[in-house]
Amino acid sequence: MRQRVGIIGAGPSGLAQLRAFKSAEEKGEELPEIVCFEKQDNWGGLWNYSWRTGLDQHGEIAHSSMYRYLWSNGPKECLEFADYYFEEHFGHPIASFPPREVLFDYIQGRVEKAKVRNMIRFNTAVRNVEYDEESELFSVTVSNLVDDETYSEKFDYVIVASGHFSTPNVPNYDGFSHFNGRILHAHDFRDAMEFKDQDILVIGSSYSAEDIGSQCYKYGAKSITSSYRTAPMGFGWPENWEEKPALVKVDGNTAFFADGTSKEVDSIILCTGYIHHFPFLPDSLRLKTNNILYPLDLYKGVVWEKNPRLMYLGMQDQWYTFNMFDAQAWYARDIILKKISLPSFSEMQAHTLEWHEKETAQDDVAYAIDFQGAYTQMLIDETDYPNFDIEGVNRTFMDWKHNKKDGIMTFRDKSHASLMTGTESPPHHTPWLDALDDSLESYLDI
Amino acid sequence: MRQRVGIIGAGPSGLAQLRAFKSAEEKGEELPEIVCFEKQDNWGGLWNYSWRTGLDQHGEIAHSSMYRYLWSNGPKECLEFADYYFEEHFGHPIASFPPREVLFDYIQGRVEKAKVRNMIRFNTAVRNVEYDEESELFSVTVSNLVDDETYSEKFDYVIVASGHFSTPNVPNYDGFSHFNGRILHAHDFRDAMEFKDQDILVIGSSYSAEDIGSQCYKYGAKSITSSYRTAPMGFGWPENWEEKPALVKVDGNTAFFADGTSKEVDSIILCTGYIHHFPFLPDSLRLKTNNILYPLDLYKGVVWEKNPRLMYLGMQDQWYTFNMFDAQAWYARDIILKKISLPSFSEMQAHTLEWHEKETAQDDVAYAIDFQGAYTQMLIDETDYPNFDIEGVNRTFMDWKHNKKDGIMTFRDKSHASLMTGTESPPHHTPWLDALDDSLESYLDI
Repeated sequence: MRQRVGIIGAGPSGLAQLRAFKSAEEKGEELPEIVCFEKQDNWGGLWNYSWRTGLDQHGEIAHSSMYRYLWSNGPKECLEFADYYFEEHFGHPIASFPPREVLFDYIQGRVEKAKVRNMIRFNTAVRNVEYDEESELFSVTVSNLVDDETYSEKFDYVIVASGHFSTPNVPNYDGFSHFNGRILHAHDFRDAMEFKDQDILVIGSSYSAEDIGSQCYKYGAKSITSSYRTAPMGFGWPENWEEKPALVKVDGNTAFFADGTSKEVDSIILCTGYIHHFPFLPDSLRLKTNNILYPLDLYKGVVWEKNPRLMYLGMQDQWYTFNMFDAQAWYARDIILKKISLPSFSEMQAHTLEWHEKETAQDDVAYAIDFQGAYTQMLIDETDYPNFDIEGVNRTFMDWKHNKKDGIMTFRDKSHASLMTGTESPPHHTPWLDALDDSLESYLDI
Repeated sequence: MRQRVGIIGAGPSGLAQLRAFKSAEEKGEELPEIVCFEKQDNWGGLWNYSWRTGLDQHGEIAHSSMYRYLWSNGPKECLEFADYYFEEHFGHPIASFPPREVLFDYIQGRVEKAKVRNMIRFNTAVRNVEYDEESELFSVTVSNLVDDETYSEKFDYVIVASGHFSTPNVPNYDGFSHFNGRILHAHDFRDAMEFKDQDILVIGSSYSAEDIGSQCYKYGAKSITSSYRTAPMGFGWPENWEEKPALVKVDGNTAFFADGTSKEVDSIILCTGYIHHFPFLPDSLRLKTNNILYPLDLYKGVVWEKNPRLMYLGMQDQWYTFNMFDAQAWYARDIILKKISLPSFSEMQAHTLEWHEKETAQDDVAYAIDFQGAYTQMLIDETDYPNFDIEGVNRTFMDWKHNKKDGIMTFRDKSHASLMTGTESPPHHTPWLDALDDSLESYLDI
C-alpha cells in the first residue's frame, strides 16, 4: 500500500514540503501519495495578497495578513532558497529588499519549475483531524468551498503548514467599545492610504508596529504615535512620530498613556502579534506555544513528539524563513521516506528541552540569530538540502540590524551580497521612501 | 435515561429555546438535560455589541454584525415577546424604536427572570457535529476557548440557533485590490464616526444599506452614494445621498457605475447580505438555503426533515423575529417532550414544498408579511405559547412601511401600539436624527 501524506497549507512551508518531495523524486525516489489542502484559491500563503479582511468569499477566515506596499523588511539574501537562487529566477541580480509581488513571483517560480500544483487542492479548508490508534491513520475532514461539500480522507502522515501569522492576538483596552474611530489589528491592515492625513496610534513595538507605522508615514499619515509595553523601539523616527509607553485607556478619541500624557487619534492599529491557532486539531495533536525560537513538544522543531506521524513546519519565531522552512521540509520528508529514524519519546523530549533552554541562555539579538542559524544547520546536516553559508546569513542579519539603527527609513536602500552566489546586489533605482509604486514592473524596471 | 439536548448559540433563538423549556418546567414538566453552547462571553447573539471585527480575543470569528448607534429599524411592537411585555420589563410604556442597548436589556430581562444562565456554557465554540445512526446520538465536539481544551459530548437532540447574519456575503469587484481606501462589509461596520467627512459608497439596497447609509448621514458623512442591482430603494433621501445603479469597477478612488457615471469615494461599505454558514455541520445535517421566508428541508421551518432529531431556529428571512423564534422554540420543545409527533418524511416534505411555493405566489410586501404571520400562527396553534394579535402585527408592519415612505429619516419618531397590551407607545423625547447618544440612560431618560 502506497502511503499517504496530507499537508495543510500551500504557503511557503507547505510549498517547501512539496518541493522537498519533488526533489527526492528527481533523484529516483518513489514518493508517497501527497495531498496538500489549501483554503485560499491560490498558493503563497501570506504572500498571496487579498483586499479582503475578516471573512473571505466563502465565509472562511481571511488568511492573509499581507498589506499593500509591503517590501521585505529583511534582506532577501537571508531567505534565499539554496536550491533556487534569485539570479536563476530573475535572470540577473536584483536589489535586496523586494516588494511583496516580487517575492511572490520568486516563491512561485520555484514551485512552477518543480510542477507541484497538481498536488494541491485549492479552495479546500481543513475542518477536523483525528488519529486512530488502531489503524495508525489520520482522518482529515475538509470542506470543498466551491462545491460546499465536506469529505474525509485517511493519511499515514499529516504535516501542519498553516502558519502562525494569521490569527491575531487582539487585546482589549478600557474605552475601546466607545472609541469614535477605527480600531483594527495589523492582520486587517491593507492600504496605508486609508490612514492618510490621520493621527494614528500604533500599539506594539515589534516588526508590525515598526513597518506599519513606517508605511503610514510614507503614505502621508499626519502623525504616528507608537506605544510600547517594555521598551521603545528607539529608532531615529521622523518628526511626526512619537514613542509613548503603554496605552492605559481611550476616552472618545483621546488615548491616555502610562506616563500621564495623552494624544488625540483617529485610528488605532493593534500591532500586538499573532497566536498559534489550530482549531482543526484535537488537544492530543495540537501545538500550544507562544512565539519563540524553540517551542516544546516539537523534536527538531518539526516532529510532534507525542505522535511522530504528525509534523509541523515553520512554527518558530523567525529570523530565518524560507530556507529554514526548506530545511524542515527536507527533514520531514526524509522521516517519511524512512531515511531518518527517530529516537525514543524520552530522548526526543530531552533533546528538545536542551535546545529550548539554550534559546533563553542569552538575551541578545546576535545570540538569537546564531541560535536559529545553528538550528537550521542541524537540520541541513541530516538531509541532502544544499548546504549554504549560515555564518554569512547570520552576518548579513547583523549588518541589516546596524543599517536599521543608522536609518529606519533608509535601511532598504542598502545592498547585501547573496550567500548562495556571492553576487553583490545592485542598489535599487529609487530610495524606498520615494518609491510609492510597489508593483513588480516598477521594481524590476520592466 | 434522561435525554440530552444540545443548543448551539445563546442569541435570541437559543435563549427562546431555553425559555421555552423553563416555561414547561414551571408547568410541572420534567425537562431533558439541556446544554447551550455559546462562543461569545455573554448571551444576546447579534445584540451583544463588541468593538471587535474579524477575529475575537480567542481567534474565533467575531459573531456580531451589530454597530454602534443602531436603533431598531422596525417597531418594537412587532417583535414583542408574548410572555414578557415591554411594559413588564421597563415598568412603563417606552417609545417604539429603541436603540440596541435597550433591546438587549429587554431580551436579557426575560431570561434573567427565567433563570436559564446556568444552562449556558459561554466561551465555548462548536467545532463539529456528527450523528451516529446506530446509537441515534449526536456527538458534539466543542472547544472551551478559555482553557483551550476540546471535548465531545453526546446528545439526543441538537438545535442549531447560531443565526444567519454573521457570515458576510462579500463579492469582489474589478479594481478592489487596488482601491486606495477602506473596503468593508456591513458585518465589520462599527462606528459611523469612522466615516465622518468622507464620501462613502454603499453597495446594496436592502436594510443594511438603508440603515448604515442613514447612520453615516446622521453622524456627518460628506456624501452617501448607494448602488443597487435591480431597483433603487426610492426613499426621499437627503440632498447629499444619491442612488446609482450597479457598480461596475473602481479605479484608484473612482467608482464607475452601470449608467456610465462615476464618483470619487473614500470608503466602500458592502451591504451585500449574509450567507447561511455552518462549518461545524457535515453535509448530511447542513441546511443549504438562500435567505427566504420558507427554506426547503425544514418541516414547519424548524425540523431537519432528513433527521428530525436536528432542528434549526430562526433560519428564515425575517419580518417577524423574537416572537417567531419563540413560536419555533416552543414547537421544537414540544417535539422533544413528545407532545407533538411528526408525520412521515414524505408528508413533511410535501408540507414544506407547499409552503415554499406559497411564498413566491405573490410578490409584494403585504403578502410576505401576512405569509410569515400565518406561518407563526401555525406554530403557535400547536403549543401553549401565548396567542397574540398576528393580524395586528401585520398591520403595524404596514403602517411602519408607509411611515418609511413618508420619511426615511423620521419613521422612527412615530409611535405604535402594543399588540400585547394595547397600550399606545409614547413618542420619544428627541427626534431620531438629533439623538446622537444611543445609551439606555439617554433613551429612557434616567
